[in-house]
Amino acid sequence: MPDIHALLWPRHVALIGASADAESLRGRLMRTMAGHPFQGRIYPVTRSHGEVLGRKAYASIAEVPELPDLAVLIIPAQFIPQELERCGRLGVRAAVVLSSGFAEADGSDGTQLQAEIRAIARRYDLAVLGPNAEGFANTAAALCPTFSPAMEACERPLLPTGPERGQVTVLAQSGGIGFAFFDHGRAKELAFRYIVTTGNEACLEAMDIADYVLEEGKTAALIVLMEGVKNKDTFRRVAEKALRAGVPIITAKIGRSDAGVRAAASHTAALAGSYEAYRAMFEHYGLIEGHDIDEMVDLAGAIIAHRARLPAGKRVAICTASGGGGGWMADTCVAAGLEVPVLDQVSRARIDAHLPSYGTSQNPVDATAQAMHKIGYAGLARLVIDSPLIDALIVVITARSAKNLERQRDDLARLAAQAEKPILLWSYTLPAPPASKLLRDLGYPLITDMRNCARALAVMADWRALRQRVLAPIDVGTGATGDRATAAAVLAKGEAVLCEWEARPLLAAYGIASTPPSVLVESAAAASAAAAAIGKAVALKVQSPDIPHKTEAGAVRLNLGPHEVAAAYASIMAAAKRQAPSAKIRGVLVQAMAPPGLEVILGIKRDATFGPLLLVGLGGVHVDVFKDLIVAPVPIAAAEARSLLLRLKSAALFQAFRGRPPADVDALVAAMLRLGQLAKDFEDVIAEIDLNPVLVHAEGQGISVVDALVVTDAGQRQRPGTPPCLQA
Amino acid sequence: MPDIHALLWPRHVALIGASADAESLRGRLMRTMAGHPFQGRIYPVTRSHGEVLGRKAYASIAEVPELPDLAVLIIPAQFIPQELERCGRLGVRAAVVLSSGFAEADGSDGTQLQAEIRAIARRYDLAVLGPNAEGFANTAAALCPTFSPAMEACERPLLPTGPERGQVTVLAQSGGIGFAFFDHGRAKELAFRYIVTTGNEACLEAMDIADYVLEEGKTAALIVLMEGVKNKDTFRRVAEKALRAGVPIITAKIGRSDAGVRAAASHTAALAGSYEAYRAMFEHYGLIEGHDIDEMVDLAGAIIAHRARLPAGKRVAICTASGGGGGWMADTCVAAGLEVPVLDQVSRARIDAHLPSYGTSQNPVDATAQAMHKIGYAGLARLVIDSPLIDALIVVITARSAKNLERQRDDLARLAAQAEKPILLWSYTLPAPPASKLLRDLGYPLITDMRNCARALAVMADWRALRQRVLAPIDVGTGATGDRATAAAVLAKGEAVLCEWEARPLLAAYGIASTPPSVLVESAAAASAAAAAIGKAVALKVQSPDIPHKTEAGAVRLNLGPHEVAAAYASIMAAAKRQAPSAKIRGVLVQAMAPPGLEVILGIKRDATFGPLLLVGLGGVHVDVFKDLIVAPVPIAAAEARSLLLRLKSAALFQAFRGRPPADVDALVAAMLRLGQLAKDFEDVIAEIDLNPVLVHAEGQGISVVDALVVTDAGQRQRPGTPPCLQA
Repeated sequence: MPDIHALLWPRHVALIGASADAESLRGRLMRTMAGHPFQGRIYPVTRSHGEVLGRKAYASIAEVPELPDLAVLIIPAQFIPQELERCGRLGVRAAVVLSSGFAEADGSDGTQLQAEIRAIARRYDLAVLGPNAEGFANTAAALCPTFSPAMEACERPLLPTGPERGQVTVLAQSGGIGFAFFDHGRAKELAFRYIVTTGNEACLEAMDIADYVLEEGKTAALIVLMEGVKNKDTFRRVAEKALRAGVPIITAKIGRSDAGVRAAASHTAALAGSYEAYRAMFEHYGLIEGHDIDEMVDLAGAIIAHRARLPAGKRVAICTASGGGGGWMADTCVAAGLEVPVLDQVSRARIDAHLPSYGTSQNPVDATAQAMHKIGYAGLARLVIDSPLIDALIVVITARSAKNLERQRDDLARLAAQAEKPILLWSYTLPAPPASKLLRDLGYPLITDMRNCARALAVMADWRALRQRVLAPIDVGTGATGDRATAAAVLAKGEAVLCEWEARPLLAAYGIASTPPSVLVESAAAASAAAAAIGKAVALKVQSPDIPHKTEAGAVRLNLGPHEVAAAYASIMAAAKRQAPSAKIRGVLVQAMAPPGLEVILGIKRDATFGPLLLVGLGGVHVDVFKDLIVAPVPIAAAEARSLLLRLKSAALFQAFRGRPPADVDALVAAMLRLGQLAKDFEDVIAEIDLNPVLVHAEGQGISVVDALVVTDAGQRQRPGTPPCLQA
Repeated sequence: MPDIHALLWPRHVALIGASADAESLRGRLMRTMAGHPFQGRIYPVTRSHGEVLGRKAYASIAEVPELPDLAVLIIPAQFIPQELERCGRLGVRAAVVLSSGFAEADGSDGTQLQAEIRAIARRYDLAVLGPNAEGFANTAAALCPTFSPAMEACERPLLPTGPERGQVTVLAQSGGIGFAFFDHGRAKELAFRYIVTTGNEACLEAMDIADYVLEEGKTAALIVLMEGVKNKDTFRRVAEKALRAGVPIITAKIGRSDAGVRAAASHTAALAGSYEAYRAMFEHYGLIEGHDIDEMVDLAGAIIAHRARLPAGKRVAICTASGGGGGWMADTCVAAGLEVPVLDQVSRARIDAHLPSYGTSQNPVDATAQAMHKIGYAGLARLVIDSPLIDALIVVITARSAKNLERQRDDLARLAAQAEKPILLWSYTLPAPPASKLLRDLGYPLITDMRNCARALAVMADWRALRQRVLAPIDVGTGATGDRATAAAVLAKGEAVLCEWEARPLLAAYGIASTPPSVLVESAAAASAAAAAIGKAVALKVQSPDIPHKTEAGAVRLNLGPHEVAAAYASIMAAAKRQAPSAKIRGVLVQAMAPPGLEVILGIKRDATFGPLLLVGLGGVHVDVFKDLIVAPVPIAAAEARSLLLRLKSAALFQAFRGRPPADVDALVAAMLRLGQLAKDFEDVIAEIDLNPVLVHAEGQGISVVDALVVTDAGQRQRPGTPPCLQA
């Protein structure tokens, strides 16, 4: 494993391609590095100058008098391999490649150059960041090998002064946005430990750095801007490590839309992968998604400040002297999924003693300006916070001038030290910088965007709940085992697409056998005979790997009485042949109509990045119109399967509803576990499984799998499209 | 009509309750007023001091040497009526009542005092703002009768220097939040004309001020924070006037949640009304809803800057030197409902000529830092903006230092003057204040929140489209007329609840007669006979105003063959009597089962503030689970009725779908118009109508109204609850 410590904490650094030209990126890099009090030595390497910013320059890294741990390279792309090779030979441990023109460059030999970088890094076990990166910053070491204007030395120190309150590490492929988190967060008095931009990630990727940072144990929250994950196993291992360590990962994924996918591909050559798959991973490991720089910084600040007292639930009290501000915040909280309950009578009596007649203790607690002036923000918060009906507190303040807050400093400090529930401050006026600083030093991150304030409490509560579930291992066995040998035998036939009749033995091998009685026939007469034997209404379905969309093709008929079967047989065979004249037809399935049930779709879709994912949703128009689908990595445990069903918008339909009995969720969950295990056991072969519909009967009555389709690796390459239900 | 001009533009002002004590609200008010270069005279009125801030004080307003147009009152509530009376007698034209303790105060005589204020104002035709207001600011007159800290005189002038770029007026019941818009917006170099806080609105309400402001014609955008609308006619008239004048109203409604409703009630004694009704009004008149102070300020700034070139559609190009920033913005745009299409080949060739191999012209157009440095933001924008595939442009910039922008000033100015499509700038780094100022002066509002940036373009496009629809009158006749006399006769019977059988003649009078054949019977034998006469499967439904929820009560049976009818009759009558032993039972309706169709609910709900609203949504589980309902004011015109259906999440179901024919939207729209007209004609009597379900058959086949319920004024007072479908 390359030595990330040598990368982030080098004793000395060589800067290959150094320049003093303030207008160029090279010059900005040199100035930025030299502007901070880094304790090691910085050796400029360039053939153009004898001296750079007063430092002796060397024509080659080989001539530098001390071996640097880290080389920072900013020279044209085509010279990078030879310089990196030289570094490796000399014993340099780490490199940052800032140059562009690699895999992100269209129609050039950049991809080849990038492969060479990877090979050299491997050969010398070099920790290489980039290429096409914007460098990094290590605030504790005052080391900033980057040309980002955000890291230029200025009167403001890299770290806030005042008490240590927990630090954030930023990881981003994108340099501009990576350092923008620092720019926005530092202005809010947030402390950053590392900002690492990883560019094309030819060697190290963001999650490798995250792993180092988690082992180091000095980072309280991670902000990760993702374009594409390269290694799913690293991602899963590190994401679980962070969750266990109590370090939240606040993330944004670039490539949620087609346009975003295009951008990521051309920007850092990232394969953006399916956003649905990323979301499934984020939900599974408790990564917190953000949607704006300030929002993510606010979330990080709030969680860091309250990591020892995350809210036990979502009930919030709001304290305010502005009635309008309190009411608006209450609406914002409810929109964010929080509750704003009326307080209990004991708390209200305690509060009312301090309020004028035109204030109110109900919640929002509107003390009015007069009472707030007398008892102060902390005084009011203290009256409210012990209500047993609330889990957290928002205090609406005005931080326009620090004077008023200065007067309340001791009281606020005492409250921060004693409070067992999180308290967030929202200032409806723009805060004066000294006011932000004062509050930050006391342990109150200050938020000015209402939506961010409410959302911070909601995600804190969700994240705490998820972590509690996780104190047991999260990637546990499913309890579901299958007859691997039988399943392997079915798949070994090498069929590209398994239609229902062919898929059944595969599913049955894993205990998913709940299909209605059915017979495969090859003539109208045989169909009639089969229907008579079944003895109730039947469905007829053409079985052909070439006709996956049977309904649209007219190749299926439902609810047939015994006398209708022969004619229906002829009609669907004719339709099938019209639709696909050269289709291989295995026969026609005569199947008993299943009893009624809640129509669900259940499926597997293998994601290019993360492997097989389970997909569950309400069937029929719900999939097409309301997109009511949930996705999760497999294998899946019973507790998670149940929580997935609860996350469906239509979750209420599984319960008793308007006189209808509750659905057999146990049977559905069992099928989810088995299907997940099957997909995991054969992840190299099975590309998709589509059980659509699955009818979930009343409690105790099980499920019926009424149609099934399996696509294997061979099929995925051949087939023009995926079934609509899987185009999540 | 009271003289709002005298309120906002007084020649002289008396301040009743003046004080020099800087710690008190009175003192802050006096200092704030005196701190600005108001051209008129300010007369302190107080018995406690001979002089206030160097100005001679008077013991009574009667002693003031010149008659002031405006009196500002900040004395205890109980003295307000007598002082206001004195002002009225003297000929003062307007008053601002800052004191609290009126209708918003619990368990006091505040409500009575507020009624007295209203009576005095009416008697003397006084323009009265408040009580419980925080005053106002008129920036052009440098008049700030308010104690808001946001309006204290400071080194920053009230209005931005530089070219006039359009001004915003803020109207809010809440003082704190009202002036917070100024605080946030002024820091972004936005120009404000008036900030008016209206408090309890005993006399003037926000929409009265809006009317004045629209007539004046010097305000380019309104920001309105609403707690409750007092007069629906004023609201509708002024909202339409603003839309016609091209002045957007950017609004937030307090009271979207129960907690918000509580807060508004106790804060400014506002009856918050149903949020659904407000939303229907906002959609109808094109008010733009915001959710945060900064967001609303950003929306106002963007629309003002581009009001002469609003986007013709939702296709956006993104120009960037930060690949990550461009990709993230693309995702954000798509999430906001915008499109980010790949550009046309001609535009791409034009752009590609300037890009290095590792840039891309596809869209987002990632020029890379190198190319952007060469051609500048305006240069790149100019290459992109003429693409026929886009309606608007977002340029991702860094406004961290003004120097880079200063260099591009002339080019940016030329672009702003020439561009025919809107251009928004998003800075991913925090802008330096001189950079914001420079850009503002050139006509580019600068946005730092990505979500706000994308949303601004989306709402601009929506608002333009709505205005275009509105160039014809919006509150047009519906074309639907009814037989008012027959309907009036039905309603004159004074029934509280009309069950289906009783509601039918009322509906039929307005042409809503599409019910399946049905007969009311009073015995099992008659039921059997009726079913036989109908000659197909029937439904049996107990008709009782006391059993509105028939299904839950077991008082309905569906799909009955002729032999099942008698037993079903007995069973539902027994169930009905069990459910409501004293229920008045009108009989049992024997009704032919309707042919299948898309299940829709259609209804009327009378809102306390805005009167009757039409409600349409998908029936069945969709209403309960997905809340897929749309609400609009009545009467309704055909074009709007059609656009309502398109706004349903389930809109796609009305079209041809998976082999199913399209639904008869024309018939549904006709029923919506007729129902709306009925509700409007009898808005004083009809509280609710519930047609649930209405089955919409295939195109050309019409609709079937399968159940109906009407609640009148008498019923609304008696009935314990509303049907679930109307609890929107």
